[in-house]
Formats: sequence, C-alpha cells, structure tokens
Amino acid sequence: MSIKTANQTTLQRLTEAQPFLVDCVPAAQAMGLTGRSVLHAGPPLPWERACATVQAAICCAVRYEGWAPDDAAARALVLTGEVRIGPCHHLAAVGPMTGIITPSMPVFVVENRAHGNRAHVTINEGLGKVLRFGANDASVVERLRWLAGEAGPILGAALRASGGIDLRALMAQAVRMGDDMHQRNVAASSLLARSLMGPLVRSGVDASALARVADFIGANDQFFLNIAMAAGKAATDPCLSGADSTLVVTMARNGTDFGIRAAGLGDRWFTAPVEMPKGLYFPGFGPEDANPDMGDSAIVETIGLGAFAMAASPSVVRFVGAGGVQEAIAATEEMAEICLGEHPHFKIPTMDERGTPVGIDIRKVVETGITPLINTGIAGKIPGTGQIGAGIARAPLACFEQALEAFGAR
Amino acid sequence: MSIKTANQTTLQRLTEAQPFLVDCVPAAQAMGLTGRSVLHAGPPLPWERACATVQAAICCAVRYEGWAPDDAAARALVLTGEVRIGPCHHLAAVGPMTGIITPSMPVFVVENRAHGNRAHVTINEGLGKVLRFGANDASVVERLRWLAGEAGPILGAALRASGGIDLRALMAQAVRMGDDMHQRNVAASSLLARSLMGPLVRSGVDASALARVADFIGANDQFFLNIAMAAGKAATDPCLSGADSTLVVTMARNGTDFGIRAAGLGDRWFTAPVEMPKGLYFPGFGPEDANPDMGDSAIVETIGLGAFAMAASPSVVRFVGAGGVQEAIAATEEMAEICLGEHPHFKIPTMDERGTPVGIDIRKVVETGITPLINTGIAGKIPGTGQIGAGIARAPLACFEQALEAFGAR
Repeated sequence: MSIKTANQTTLQRLTEAQPFLVDCVPAAQAMGLTGRSVLHAGPPLPWERACATVQAAICCAVRYEGWAPDDAAARALVLTGEVRIGPCHHLAAVGPMTGIITPSMPVFVVENRAHGNRAHVTINEGLGKVLRFGANDASVVERLRWLAGEAGPILGAALRASGGIDLRALMAQAVRMGDDMHQRNVAASSLLARSLMGPLVRSGVDASALARVADFIGANDQFFLNIAMAAGKAATDPCLSGADSTLVVTMARNGTDFGIRAAGLGDRWFTAPVEMPKGLYFPGFGPEDANPDMGDSAIVETIGLGAFAMAASPSVVRFVGAGGVQEAIAATEEMAEICLGEHPHFKIPTMDERGTPVGIDIRKVVETGITPLINTGIAGKIPGTGQIGAGIARAPLACFEQALEAFGAR
Repeated sequence: MSIKTANQTTLQRLTEAQPFLVDCVPAAQAMGLTGRSVLHAGPPLPWERACATVQAAICCAVRYEGWAPDDAAARALVLTGEVRIGPCHHLAAVGPMTGIITPSMPVFVVENRAHGNRAHVTINEGLGKVLRFGANDASVVERLRWLAGEAGPILGAALRASGGIDLRALMAQAVRMGDDMHQRNVAASSLLARSLMGPLVRSGVDASALARVADFIGANDQFFLNIAMAAGKAATDPCLSGADSTLVVTMARNGTDFGIRAAGLGDRWFTAPVEMPKGLYFPGFGPEDANPDMGDSAIVETIGLGAFAMAASPSVVRFVGAGGVQEAIAATEEMAEICLGEHPHFKIPTMDERGTPVGIDIRKVVETGITPLINTGIAGKIPGTGQIGAGIARAPLACFEQALEAFGAR
C-alpha cells in the first residue's frame, strides 16, 4: 500500500472513532491490572531514570494501596521488583501528568463503538495537591480513598444506567464552546455533569454521598480532561496496526523522556529528553521550580485537540501565556502544516467551521522542522509541591527523526 | 446634569448590577400577581390589537388556571374584564415570546444585590409545542401543571439552599463559551445545571421527582434563556429613574408593537409596529407562516448580549442565517456604534477580550439610523403551531425617533 493511501486509511480510522463513556470500575477489574503494579505516564521508565516527582507519586501510590507504610519501604519494594512499574499506554490506559494507576483505583471505561476496543483513565482528582502533580501527603491519599470508596462506585452505577454517553458529540459541542480539552475543559465538564444528573439521581444511592459527588464534579472545571484522554486513547489504539502509515498514534511524556509511536511502526517507542514547558506560573513559583513536561495528556493533541485546537479556545491562549486570538489561530494553522487532514467532527467556529488539524505525520514534522505544540500543566520539581503553573511545550524533533529513520529501514 | 454624565452614571448602574438567582416560587407569592390576571410580553396591548397567537396563549393560560373550561369562555372573561391582562414589565417581570405569566405559575426570582431590586420570569418550557410560542393543546397545559406542581417547588428548594447563584459570573463565563444568551444558552444552561446538582440532591425530595427535573434541565439547551432575561430585567429596572439619560432601558415586543423605554423618560413606552424576523425556518415552514416578532427577550440585547454579543457566538450566526465569523464580528461592531460603552464583565474572546457593546443610546440610533439587532425565535402565526424557526429582527427606528422627540420636549 502506498504511504499516502495508508495514511488516509489510518486517519479515517482515527477520526471515525465513536468513543462512549460506559463505566467506572476498579482498574483491577477493568484492565486486569493485578498484583502489586503501578502504572505511570509516558514511555517505559526504569525507576532510576524517573524524576523525583514521579518517584514520589509512585511511592505515594504504594502507600495508598497499603503495600508499604512509608516512602522508604515503598521505594525498597520497587527496587526489589516486588512492586512492578510500567506505562499506562501498554494496558489500554492513559494518565495525566505522573499518570499513576494502581489496581484499586476506579477508572473510567471508554468504549470505541466503531472498533470495539476500550480505554481507561482515572477520575480527575481536582486541583491543588493531587497525586498527578506529584503531591503525596495524607490529604492526597485520603482523596484517593474517597474516589475509590464512594465517587467511583456512584459514577459507575450512573454510567451503566445511562447506557453510555456519546463522547464524540459532547466533545464536538465543547470545542464549539471554547474548550481545547487540555487546559480548558469547563464546557465538556459542564455538559457531562448535565448529562449525568438524571442517571446519578436515579442511581438510588444515599443522598449525602451523591451530594459529595455532585459537589466534587461541580467544583472541578478540569473534570473532563481525563475522559477526553481516554477518548483519545480509544480512538488511537486501533491505528497502531496501520502498516505503511506515518501517522503519529501516541505522544506521551514521563517527566524524563518524550516518546512517540507511529502507526506503521507498531509498539515501538521513539524517545528523546523531554523539554521544559513555557508558560505562566502561580504566584511564588517560576521556571526554576518546574519539573520537565510529563503526562499522557498529549493524547488530546494527537487527536486534534489541545494546542491543535487553540483557535477554538482563545481564552486558553492567554492562560498559557501565548497572546490573543491571532496567536491562537496561528498556532492552529502551524499545526495544520504537520497534519494529514482536518477533523470531520471537531469544528472551530472562529475559523468558519474548519475542522481542527489532526493526524500528525512524522514526515511532515521532519520536513518542516515544525514540532507538535502541547498545552500542558506544570508540576513542581520538588516532590509534594503539586501544580505550579500551565504552559506550552514542544515535542522534541529527535523523536520524529528516529521514527522516520526506522520507517525507512522497516 | 449633562446628558453625557447622566448616561455614564446610568450605564454604570446597569453594568454594576449583581444579579443572583435566589428562588423559584409561584408568581402570586413572588410578585403579588393576584386575582384573575394574565401577564404578556411587550408594551401594553389591548386584547383587540393582540395577534391570534398571543390571544391563543392568553386563553390557554386562562384554561390552565381553571378559570374557564374552553377558549370561548376564556375569551369572554377577558372581553368582560373579569380576567385582566397587562405587561410583565410593569410587575418586575419578563416573559419570552408570548410571555404569559399567571398567578399559579412558578417564577424564578433574581435579586440584584447591587441595588436591592428583584425580577421574575417563568421556567423555560423547553422546545416544540409550548405556551410561549402560542401552542395551546392539552400537552402544553399538562407541562405547565408539572412545572407548577413538581419542578418549581424542587428548584425553589434547591435555590434557597444554595444561598443564591451568582449570575453575573456565570453569564460572563458563558459568553466566553459561545453563548449569545438569546438563541444559544447551552453553556449557561450547563453551568447552571452543574451548580445546581449539589443543592438539588441535597433538597431531600423524592428521587423519581428529582430525576424528572434533572432530565428536563438536561434536555433543554435553552433552559437558561429565561434566567438571563430576569438578570437583564433586574439590571435595567434601577436605570428607569436615570433622569437626563438617553440610555434605552427596555426593548420588548408583543407580536403587534415594538416598545422601548428610556432612562430619562420613566415609565413611558414608545411604540411602533413590530417587524418580521429574517432567518431560518424549520422544515415545512417559511416566512409566510411567521408571526411578527414578539417577547421580552430583547432585554438581553438591552444589556449587551444576544445580537450585541454575536461575535462571541459565531455558531449562532449560522443558526440565524447570518453567515460566518466576520459577519458575527461585524454585527457586534455595528451595535457598538449605537452604544455608550463596553460591558466590563461580558468579554468576547474572539475580539481579544473586548467587552460587548452595551447601553443603547436613543440619540446614536437616530443619528446613525442603525437600529438594534435582536436574535429571536420565530413563532407560527396560526395559533397552536409553536416555534417554526429562528432569526434576526431589527427594532423599528420610529420608537427611537419618538423617544428622542419626547426627550427634547421633557
């Protein structure tokens, strides 16, 4: 098959995905994540190469599971291999920032009804001191326990009763409402909340527990981010078998490396040192406090959202320190130069209903030297700090150069 | 006081409003609407001048209240004066389209915490065959009874428990999310639903009743329209005493006349025959089926939303048949020519955070000949039809000419 034909076929496979949010159950049950396992964001990461923030999050997760009483014991379990670590991406899952998933954590289940596969992601923890940004104190563990003990089961019951929520329709609507679905998810979060109200009320659970879940969703504008990521994972996984295609299927970071995978190259990762994001910092923090970029959330850019949909989300441009509407449109137009097409469902009102650029082509990246932009949160590099800002990062060119070389040699 | 100073003072009074959604109770209790009274949209309207659609809605409301068994008897009660009719605007209320309010109907209560006044509006009935579009069959009455018997009390309990919902913040956010808040309210409706989830669940009412209310809100993208109107009414009423100001405080239509009121001219209405909207029709309908424009909903244009915020809502431009982004920006820029300022809270992302034009000046309208644009729904002219489309209408110049003449003669 010609590369051109293969790319068009793979792009269509990506954009014709029909992700439905169908359930929320523990990772052990949904993903077969058994034993003492901790998943993390990004490409595979030996413990000794992990940054302090990711190491802290892994140890916190071990404590949360009750496998160790403190960080020293948790670290020992990882070093001896009694606790295994591995990438979310290898188990049909994605995780934001540190991206930690352990067996007892509830995960949302997204079913791609066009291709029959499923993807998984944890419930967004909210802002501030949260595990995904490397915070690791008692409040973090307490919230994780509440998510597993109360929020997860209630959300699962409501989702099962709903028959599944059509994420493609919801996300298309949210793009029209100014969400890039990476740094801005207020529209998608609100649309989802409105859709879930009926099923939640009907779930028949205790009113005070239900009220806590309602308040939790109501207070978190980024609630939908994780679900958008799972929708992206569900849409992209079926593209990994796209022989002869140079379409980028995965972009992910683990705080140390940036890794990509391409359709015609199967499971193989192409990695390079991850860059520092540029952006705005919360009061009291600056670039010197920032951890290098991390998280599987770049999956949303891989499906034409995030920085690729910047023109749809002028409010975000300011938030990430990038200027006004013209800069937002310029960012989307720049990304169009490295993409194979426009998304048939995600339309940008400010660009007269053009679709967002989608289907990053490793050839176009290498030819133009234009690397994918990613809207991202910024974590503190000192473990326990949490989020310190938000900004824009670039994928390293070296990943695409290596992938193209491998593609030529295949 | 100079006109310029008076206008700046009145404009500030308008834009510094702090509308909070605080309650939902029967109109009799909230507004003192007692006896056999039916309120309608727009300026005062003698029965014999009312169009067939408004007459049908009034008769349906009389049947709903149980004052008459059929339309003939209802009509007789109005003709003999046993049922009185009058404008919503005279009782601190507003109503969309036909704008019908009767004593037993539940109304939302919006409190302007900057000035202490209150405004009222019915619960939006949803789409299709609804009283506000002149539909009048058994399904219309049944829904009205459900709103009064179940939805209203539940919403009231939740709102009282919430302590009040800050509408200015919510509406500012919704403008950023592409709502013009006249023909598009999906963002505001979703944000409100998310805010109400916790209080609704905590209201302690029967779960199946609560689920019906949640489904009703979840299925209606225009749910917030009425509330935006009441926020507008709450913001503008305190401006009616703005002596020496040429700021337009009210624009409203009753299906026969278009009426305006201005700050420096108190309660006096200046009316002219209302125009036909131009727009898109539902399949099977066309301009020949349309009723002349009606409703108090032009209050949202009066506070800088609706067609004035068209640039914030490029999706609406298409819906009302007006083209793309450039046309949307042009509409907002045209409205800026007849306004006294920009809204300090309603910011347009697509125009680099400029505020929406607000504070229509009768002098500028007459000087430029530019009349206010209004995004509007279109009702069928045959009673019972309901909504048949949506479009754009213009306020008639004659209203502003008369007002300016009266201002000169005051």
